[in-house]
Amino acid sequence: MLVVMNASATPEQIEQVCRAVAELGYTAHAMPGPTRTAIGITGNRGPIADSERIERLPGVRELIRVTAPYKLVSREFHEADTVVHLGSELGAAQPAEIGGAAVAVIAGPCTVEGRDQVLAVAQAVKDAGAVMLRGGAYKPRTSPYAFQGLGIEGLRLLAEAREIAGLPVVTEIMDVETLPMVLSCADMLQVGARNMQNYPLLRAVGRSGRPVLLKRGFAATVTDLLLAAEYILSEGNPNVVLCERGIRTFDDSARFTLDLHAVPLIKQLSHLPVIVDPSHASGRADRVVPLARAAVAAGADGLIVEVHHAPAFATCDGEQALTPPSFASMMAQVERIAAALDRPMAQQPTWAS
Amino acid sequence: MLVVMNASATPEQIEQVCRAVAELGYTAHAMPGPTRTAIGITGNRGPIADSERIERLPGVRELIRVTAPYKLVSREFHEADTVVHLGSELGAAQPAEIGGAAVAVIAGPCTVEGRDQVLAVAQAVKDAGAVMLRGGAYKPRTSPYAFQGLGIEGLRLLAEAREIAGLPVVTEIMDVETLPMVLSCADMLQVGARNMQNYPLLRAVGRSGRPVLLKRGFAATVTDLLLAAEYILSEGNPNVVLCERGIRTFDDSARFTLDLHAVPLIKQLSHLPVIVDPSHASGRADRVVPLARAAVAAGADGLIVEVHHAPAFATCDGEQALTPPSFASMMAQVERIAAALDRPMAQQPTWAS
Amino acid sequence: MLVVMNASATPEQIEQVCRAVAELGYTAHAMPGPTRTAIGITGNRGPIADSERIERLPGVRELIRVTAPYKLVSREFHEADTVVHLGSELGAAQPAEIGGAAVAVIAGPCTVEGRDQVLAVAQAVKDAGAVMLRGGAYKPRTSPYAFQGLGIEGLRLLAEAREIAGLPVVTEIMDVETLPMVLSCADMLQVGARNMQNYPLLRAVGRSGRPVLLKRGFAATVTDLLLAAEYILSEGNPNVVLCERGIRTFDDSARFTLDLHAVPLIKQLSHLPVIVDPSHASGRADRVVPLARAAVAAGADGLIVEVHHAPAFATCDGEQALTPPSFASMMAQVERIAAALDRPMAQQPTWAS
Amino acid sequence: MLVVMNASATPEQIEQVCRAVAELGYTAHAMPGPTRTAIGITGNRGPIADSERIERLPGVRELIRVTAPYKLVSREFHEADTVVHLGSELGAAQPAEIGGAAVAVIAGPCTVEGRDQVLAVAQAVKDAGAVMLRGGAYKPRTSPYAFQGLGIEGLRLLAEAREIAGLPVVTEIMDVETLPMVLSCADMLQVGARNMQNYPLLRAVGRSGRPVLLKRGFAATVTDLLLAAEYILSEGNPNVVLCERGIRTFDDSARFTLDLHAVPLIKQLSHLPVIVDPSHASGRADRVVPLARAAVAAGADGLIVEVHHAPAFATCDGEQALTPPSFASMMAQVERIAAALDRPMAQQPTWAS
Repeated sequence: MLVVMNASATPEQIEQVCRAVAELGYTAHAMPGPTRTAIGITGNRGPIADSERIERLPGVRELIRVTAPYKLVSREFHEADTVVHLGSELGAAQPAEIGGAAVAVIAGPCTVEGRDQVLAVAQAVKDAGAVMLRGGAYKPRTSPYAFQGLGIEGLRLLAEAREIAGLPVVTEIMDVETLPMVLSCADMLQVGARNMQNYPLLRAVGRSGRPVLLKRGFAATVTDLLLAAEYILSEGNPNVVLCERGIRTFDDSARFTLDLHAVPLIKQLSHLPVIVDPSHASGRADRVVPLARAAVAAGADGLIVEVHHAPAFATCDGEQALTPPSFASMMAQVERIAAALDRPMAQQPTWAS
Repeated sequence: MLVVMNASATPEQIEQVCRAVAELGYTAHAMPGPTRTAIGITGNRGPIADSERIERLPGVRELIRVTAPYKLVSREFHEADTVVHLGSELGAAQPAEIGGAAVAVIAGPCTVEGRDQVLAVAQAVKDAGAVMLRGGAYKPRTSPYAFQGLGIEGLRLLAEAREIAGLPVVTEIMDVETLPMVLSCADMLQVGARNMQNYPLLRAVGRSGRPVLLKRGFAATVTDLLLAAEYILSEGNPNVVLCERGIRTFDDSARFTLDLHAVPLIKQLSHLPVIVDPSHASGRADRVVPLARAAVAAGADGLIVEVHHAPAFATCDGEQALTPPSFASMMAQVERIAAALDRPMAQQPTWAS
Repeated sequence: MLVVMNASATPEQIEQVCRAVAELGYTAHAMPGPTRTAIGITGNRGPIADSERIERLPGVRELIRVTAPYKLVSREFHEADTVVHLGSELGAAQPAEIGGAAVAVIAGPCTVEGRDQVLAVAQAVKDAGAVMLRGGAYKPRTSPYAFQGLGIEGLRLLAEAREIAGLPVVTEIMDVETLPMVLSCADMLQVGARNMQNYPLLRAVGRSGRPVLLKRGFAATVTDLLLAAEYILSEGNPNVVLCERGIRTFDDSARFTLDLHAVPLIKQLSHLPVIVDPSHASGRADRVVPLARAAVAAGADGLIVEVHHAPAFATCDGEQALTPPSFASMMAQVERIAAALDRPMAQQPTWAS
Repeated sequence: MLVVMNASATPEQIEQVCRAVAELGYTAHAMPGPTRTAIGITGNRGPIADSERIERLPGVRELIRVTAPYKLVSREFHEADTVVHLGSELGAAQPAEIGGAAVAVIAGPCTVEGRDQVLAVAQAVKDAGAVMLRGGAYKPRTSPYAFQGLGIEGLRLLAEAREIAGLPVVTEIMDVETLPMVLSCADMLQVGARNMQNYPLLRAVGRSGRPVLLKRGFAATVTDLLLAAEYILSEGNPNVVLCERGIRTFDDSARFTLDLHAVPLIKQLSHLPVIVDPSHASGRADRVVPLARAAVAAGADGLIVEVHHAPAFATCDGEQALTPPSFASMMAQVERIAAALDRPMAQQPTWAS
């Protein structure tokens, strides 16, 4: 950390800062300059917890922090790419994988609406090469009057679709109370954008040990996202997949502004896999496929995409869902982009007979 | 709602939209124009749940929604200002009030750190005219390694400070599990910015019946905030105070950009009281007072401000806390601004002996 | 400036950075720490022009700049508040003033539409206490098909209104070519938000010596604004008034998000006067007055407000213009707010007979 | 356009709006509903110029505009993709092309620093397959103390590099005064992000007839960008290439947030070519290449990339410049991405001998 003093700071004030640093157990390095003095602090192995005490001292202009605030998620502390295995807790012989060389696609409906729907969509995305099924049973909706999901019945239908299609399942978890039920059927727990900083929930999914899909909050920086993941890892659960899904900006031509720069940035800063959700970012089916291609070209380890067999009749977010043929076309295009980066598409899991 | 057709839409496509509208039970009004046709939909008394079905029909360019998506919080449905009473559940003879003519100030430390601290700050803010004490026992922190609050011990200290200073207490609630404990000591439940769209939590505080301080999420629009409040009111709890505390923008000179335009806007759209938190928005004590004055001048019903008797030694957010003398000065300035709007400062509560 | 090295940087790499710093003529201070080394640079009296050379050296993680990039506009270099005099070039005996103790209000129509309009509005704002008349002759419009202003005819009408009402005039300057004409009638040159980084224009108005009203670009930080002002001052023209008028954010409930935090921030960083435009920020007449009060309460040195005698018939931005009675009411309210801060309203200018 | 009335609007108020619409020469369609009445307006062939008159009538809640505000740039009015030819004014036998099936890459230094530099970089980008040379002679810099470009000497060096390397040149134009000089050496005029709404400049480059590279302002919506292009086309110049280069958002991990969603959106709305600048968006060379791949995968017609033969010694923006080997690697990767979309790389121009 660096303490920048005012141009008018007195020698006594500079001395007082150095003493305060020493009292906190660190080392101060005063660097006098022609216009002002700066004081470097070393000796800390992480963020300085009591930095406010220094910031309030007379003559101090500002503090500049230089150490990354996270550890377990950092590539500096864990060089190799993490690969998350999906399905092994619930019986896969050869689980699906996210992370590593291959590009993995998760697909399915926004919301589980009924048995026919979820089975039809599950089969369609399986046929097109998806390695995992997504589907919401509990839905966070901005309005209390919007459809909130089928709840337990939705979980039951997901379990059935999982069995029949042979794909591991990811579904959103909204609170600690429903966690046991969701754990009984889900191979991966999705923490949605609105809950990215719901810390009790992060700790609970961390303790569960189950793989977690952590979506970036739409006002979260990449640092915020990595710190949210750090909550999960700090509970002993290393199986976290990060997901870029768009941020809120002044631009209103899409629901959210997809920040693909986050993909190479996260790959530099962290060893965790990162996938992209082009459906929620764009909000329009006709622009999902170009963004899916772009995400893989940027280096994403996979995609999570909404598919519906009859989008015009979807209960929620129908305007952004791909039809099965559009999804199959997207998979073909994405495979070509992945090949242009010498990456294969991820293998579908196999199951013990 | 208005359905805008493509310039090239055929008469058959227009007819198909009108039929679909009729099948949904509404009335369609086709308005042919020289470049394109628009179709008005009437007969709905709220948002059209199945609008996606129409949006997906061939020839449709876009849907434009014209009805506000909330009801119970809306001034159209409840003309008079809501006044929220604080302290009556827990024994006040004459409770504190937020809403109505007077300007109410809530103040206290960011976090409860210990008995001496909370009692000292409680007395200081009481002496300066605050009507309510704030203080965090459970703290949502971006980093898992930051101080997370004293928890139950913090609640116990708040209860003691409440008793001694004679001020009702607001404290943050982070999950449903700790709700019973928090209800035992808090006159008002704070739902923080990071939890503004934590819907299970909103429903739970709604069911509790206890007054709620709902802070705007830092990427939430005013509509999102009103819909979050609608969750609480729809559970039968009308005692909600809204709080503007800054949004995330490209500007990095403050922690958040305080959006004071939200104050008159909310007063137009809703009957709920709205207060402003200048401390979290600015992040710097020396800019809290100007923003506090501005908030009251914009028409806010009150303020929530961080005060610490020794900010340089605060465990968290010390750089934004006012000292007791600065707070007393702020109160004097705010009182003059309120007087310039012909508003008195709110009365402190009295208690049954 | 501080050079932060990678955790894995070698002693040779650290040495190489120190040598490079020395070659640039500065002094390097290496500060070894347990996880990484940082190197402070002193000896520079301004930004380090060639910092990229250091940033590219092996082992360097990042550079952190600590010196403010502007000088002439900085309060560190010019302690006392600047007061800008309006009207002295063009004959005022006692010019109007912006800056200093008093609160100055500029008002007038968005656009000069005709003789009757500009004379009526000029008289109305004069009667209500404005010290200066605003009005656009050249209008920057997002669409090429929107009304672009009356041009020279508009300037002529402004000159007439100036004469009759006895108020100095501010009008927007859009390019260097029209500068001589605008100088013949305008007491202050407005550089609009879209031109805040039009550097040839900034230099030209700087060379003109005429007072300048510089509006903040809607994606500009306060630092960007101060640097734009620095362009003007560096041409020898110290008569600059800064104007906060809203920034672009995700919030779409107003045309722009008024950033009132910028007011106390600019007052700390700079000696230049700062005023606020609540009309363009809000975009709605019914929310202009609360924002005007808030701006003065935040410490602004004045306001610039749109007034139209018949807003429903205004050629441009009518929905945000106040009527003369609303403006008179605003002035009464603003005067009370100013009084609550012990500030008088600015005096209208007087003219040599 | 749609006029939405208040719930409490009287029949007389509704009637008054309809009369006002008729007086403006349009047709009003009142649509009564259970909670409120909406009034559709047809008969206009473009935006309604006097809509404010209606908006101010009693009982009106809001106006909703439904017609796109631009025409000449719109794909609705010009179905086929525009292809811009570069170099034909200044002697190419077979000019370079942007737009159409092929993917075109423009590359070169941020700023022309000297003869050796510009010749070395020009040759390197030519060798790697770029079809056009970029280089700044006049630089818009946030600080008046930063290097502002070599000016006329820079133009002369660009002309020499153009001759020797056989590549057409694009360079930034900052004001109308220098336009004649720039036209003497530049095959394409770049209007930078800060000047995207400098309307006199847009008109001037429109009248010049020379191809224009129009960069999106960093707070501009796609509609703003298309309207800025409309200024150029409305002067009779159809040769406009649009450029996405990042917008300003709360995210500070990159200089700007690259909005790749804009690429498919612009392709839907407009017939103009759209290219992407990954260098200014990312600000870091190591993240330029992933963004370049992503841009082409999203459907961009080309790229503009900064290359420097010795980035550590670049005068400006060195940290974002690719070295010649990195650029050659980028070209190889981009070619593979383009091939995955069945698009060839654009041909380099040939010259009359």
